[in-house]
Amino acid sequence: MKLYWNRLQDSLERLRANKLFETFVIGVIIASALLIGAKTYEEASRFDQLLRWLDLGVTLFFLFEIIVRMAAEKRLLNFFRSGWNIFDFIIVVASLVPINDSEMVLVARLLRVFRVLRLVSMIPELRVLLAALVKSIPRMGYVALLMFIIFYIYAAIGSFMFNSVDPVLWGNISIAMLTLFRVATFEDWTDVMYATMDDYPYSWIYYLTFIFLTAFVFLNMMIGIVLDVMQKESAAEQLESGEGEAAEVHWMRERMVLMSEQLERIERRLEEQGKG
Amino acid sequence: MKLYWNRLQDSLERLRANKLFETFVIGVIIASALLIGAKTYEEASRFDQLLRWLDLGVTLFFLFEIIVRMAAEKRLLNFFRSGWNIFDFIIVVASLVPINDSEMVLVARLLRVFRVLRLVSMIPELRVLLAALVKSIPRMGYVALLMFIIFYIYAAIGSFMFNSVDPVLWGNISIAMLTLFRVATFEDWTDVMYATMDDYPYSWIYYLTFIFLTAFVFLNMMIGIVLDVMQKESAAEQLESGEGEAAEVHWMRERMVLMSEQLERIERRLEEQGKG
Amino acid sequence: MKLYWNRLQDSLERLRANKLFETFVIGVIIASALLIGAKTYEEASRFDQLLRWLDLGVTLFFLFEIIVRMAAEKRLLNFFRSGWNIFDFIIVVASLVPINDSEMVLVARLLRVFRVLRLVSMIPELRVLLAALVKSIPRMGYVALLMFIIFYIYAAIGSFMFNSVDPVLWGNISIAMLTLFRVATFEDWTDVMYATMDDYPYSWIYYLTFIFLTAFVFLNMMIGIVLDVMQKESAAEQLESGEGEAAEVHWMRERMVLMSEQLERIERRLEEQGKG
Amino acid sequence: MKLYWNRLQDSLERLRANKLFETFVIGVIIASALLIGAKTYEEASRFDQLLRWLDLGVTLFFLFEIIVRMAAEKRLLNFFRSGWNIFDFIIVVASLVPINDSEMVLVARLLRVFRVLRLVSMIPELRVLLAALVKSIPRMGYVALLMFIIFYIYAAIGSFMFNSVDPVLWGNISIAMLTLFRVATFEDWTDVMYATMDDYPYSWIYYLTFIFLTAFVFLNMMIGIVLDVMQKESAAEQLESGEGEAAEVHWMRERMVLMSEQLERIERRLEEQGKG
Repeated sequence: MKLYWNRLQDSLERLRANKLFETFVIGVIIASALLIGAKTYEEASRFDQLLRWLDLGVTLFFLFEIIVRMAAEKRLLNFFRSGWNIFDFIIVVASLVPINDSEMVLVARLLRVFRVLRLVSMIPELRVLLAALVKSIPRMGYVALLMFIIFYIYAAIGSFMFNSVDPVLWGNISIAMLTLFRVATFEDWTDVMYATMDDYPYSWIYYLTFIFLTAFVFLNMMIGIVLDVMQKESAAEQLESGEGEAAEVHWMRERMVLMSEQLERIERRLEEQGKG
Repeated sequence: MKLYWNRLQDSLERLRANKLFETFVIGVIIASALLIGAKTYEEASRFDQLLRWLDLGVTLFFLFEIIVRMAAEKRLLNFFRSGWNIFDFIIVVASLVPINDSEMVLVARLLRVFRVLRLVSMIPELRVLLAALVKSIPRMGYVALLMFIIFYIYAAIGSFMFNSVDPVLWGNISIAMLTLFRVATFEDWTDVMYATMDDYPYSWIYYLTFIFLTAFVFLNMMIGIVLDVMQKESAAEQLESGEGEAAEVHWMRERMVLMSEQLERIERRLEEQGKG
Repeated sequence: MKLYWNRLQDSLERLRANKLFETFVIGVIIASALLIGAKTYEEASRFDQLLRWLDLGVTLFFLFEIIVRMAAEKRLLNFFRSGWNIFDFIIVVASLVPINDSEMVLVARLLRVFRVLRLVSMIPELRVLLAALVKSIPRMGYVALLMFIIFYIYAAIGSFMFNSVDPVLWGNISIAMLTLFRVATFEDWTDVMYATMDDYPYSWIYYLTFIFLTAFVFLNMMIGIVLDVMQKESAAEQLESGEGEAAEVHWMRERMVLMSEQLERIERRLEEQGKG
Repeated sequence: MKLYWNRLQDSLERLRANKLFETFVIGVIIASALLIGAKTYEEASRFDQLLRWLDLGVTLFFLFEIIVRMAAEKRLLNFFRSGWNIFDFIIVVASLVPINDSEMVLVARLLRVFRVLRLVSMIPELRVLLAALVKSIPRMGYVALLMFIIFYIYAAIGSFMFNSVDPVLWGNISIAMLTLFRVATFEDWTDVMYATMDDYPYSWIYYLTFIFLTAFVFLNMMIGIVLDVMQKESAAEQLESGEGEAAEVHWMRERMVLMSEQLERIERRLEEQGKG
């Protein structure tokens, strides 16, 4: 019995590593994405039954695929060590739950949408890209906090002063922050300003200082990321290739130590000759 | 007969390489561009006959010029090896097809517009620039794919949820993607948001996360291109000039090998002296 | 008596340096920020009395905290040497002034808003960030002046020429500068342009040259900051770490001097041997 | 007579070089700028006579100042060698021409506005900045040409196809180019698109390709400037300071030649010893 299982597991592992199987999985993910897109067209209601069958097919294939990947693992726990595997597992299992409640239809649909993200988990280049994006988040942490403080202070001032002018835009601090985000994206910001300038003629100072501050901090954030990425990239490259100026300098440094020792030996020998 | 042909071909080759002829061709292309522009003015209808004659003149000159360039080639096949030549050939030949059908007038006009692109094929600096632009495309490939996935997922969610709010903006997934592109360019995006916030008060989360994600990925793409171009440019420059820090370091590395060997020889000789 | 005071001061200093106390202060600042935010909601009027008590609590705690920090200093003057301490002191003292006048309520509220800035003075990382931001200001000084001159000239021309078209936008030079800032942010700038183009058909030249000039100068300013930050950062890093290419090159330069001297000695000794 | 003139010229040269005089000239320029600004306010009409006198004062002072600078020059021709001097001369002389014609009032006013630019000619830092800006123009020449070709082609297509939809936006090729510039700045570009999409449902392709192309070429232009500025700046810095990694590497390269020669001598001497 155990032998039979091992043999099956080996063949499953071969299947999982099969390039063709991988391409087929990516194809099914793309097909499921197109399926989701197709459903948003009104004309799709005519092919409702067909779409339903296709959706069931995709769901079952995903179930099959995840079982293959889980079974191919020597120990099941290893499977759950990768964040992407957990993500895949949740997406697949959650879409198996039968939904009759009309309220939950939206949730079911959203789950199907997130299946498209499986594309990222399947294509290694995208996974690398996403990992790089995630890595650059901490660098921006404190700048984002500073940005939030600026937004919060301006939103507090705005909702105190301009609440009477237009409660839809400045009703409370969270609405004011949304309005300020709108100002920061330059989206009809002059309409917001002209409205408050009728009551507070000097309120343009409020908007201009806000725009300058956020633009300034944003610029700084951008430069921070550029610098960070540049340093990491160049360091990683040099480590990999062993070529380029930095590598040559490093080689020279090591060679110079050897040459120095050699000179030392020569000098000592000459001294001995002098004595001898 | 053959001799006569060879002599003609030589003189055609001289004509093609002639700087004055080249400048004249560029002049005609610019004239044809101005002709196209002139036709868009209403007042141009008065000079309709004149414009027609000028257009014919340009068409015939382009025909003459391409025949010169084809005939100047020793083997006709060489002419079609360059993508730019094929482009020129198609533009010239296509504009020779007589068009009476009123439906096809638009196509004929567009063909004449694309003649302006011949300017790029004639000026080497522009050709270099375009080649550089084309080369930087693959670097962005996977980032563009990631961007597309983000757009697709948000568009799917948007067309599921906001379809009832405004079918003009969220009717199906492709319209929703266009709307999201509008949001990404900050063009009246608050109007889109305020409309959906009446039904879904928390839909601002949808827009803000989308804006942050796309801005973030776009920023990354931009940095990617900057880094790519920088590395290529500096590498190309060092190879060309043989000067600068990198070149000096390389020179030193090679010299150090020689010095090391010399030290080796000196040490061995001293050893021999010690023995002798 | 003096001894007792010294003992108290020591314990106050320990309290000030206590990590837990620091975290608690940050907590209170965040609480006071939330308090300010809560007050902007209409529903907050029901908890008016509670909010008042909480506000008093925050004010008293801040008073206590600043007294601790002042008393912990060996000499009181040292406390006022730091700009952040002066800022904290003003914020705390000013919020102690009893306000009955309804006119002054706004000022009192603004003071409470600025308490949020104490977050920057408490978190070292934010203080470093802000210092870096402040340092990059002078680099932009002359570019900002040039930008201002461009704005001023265009605003003067604009208010001379377009005053008759729309006095709301071009009434006087300061209003015109605000309108130009709007144009520079691309916010409904075509509306402004189309209005003046009815009277002055060539006024698009005015807008296009302005946009190109400001974009150009802004780009230059941005590059200036990037370069400035890059140079400072890389220099600071090399000084700190003593690693990397620059450090290796420096090491080699010093080692080379030693090797040169060694060679000198060897040559002299050989010469002596030759003579001897 | 000649001696008297020389003595006067010397004292004029001293005056011109006087730091206080320079500051005073800058002060008068700023005053004239404020004067121009003041005139744009309606309330200024009450002080009309005063402003007129002040304007005359500024004009006369500028005349005096330029005469000082011209007389201080040993040879008058030297004065006209500097572009900034010619600019100053034209501004000053032109504002002396008496203007009665009401048509010319605008020209006179504009001349007074351009006086503000004298600030750039007086402050060396601004002059350096402007020179740097001017230098970076040629680098963008061909990219700007490529951009213009893209605009021209799209404008031609747009005015052929969308002329019937909205002649105000697509009437002829120059209006279409202005509309496309508007689209490139994202200013209400969706309004333009939605209008044409009613007649041509696929016209979004036109807008999206245009936006991607211009953004792409603009990005490339920006990177080009950044690279250009960076290379110039770092090269200039190394030449100036003689410090930094590049300088150390250069020093090492030269030292290495000397060491190589020394080793050569040592080896030859050892060989001679071996023979001797």
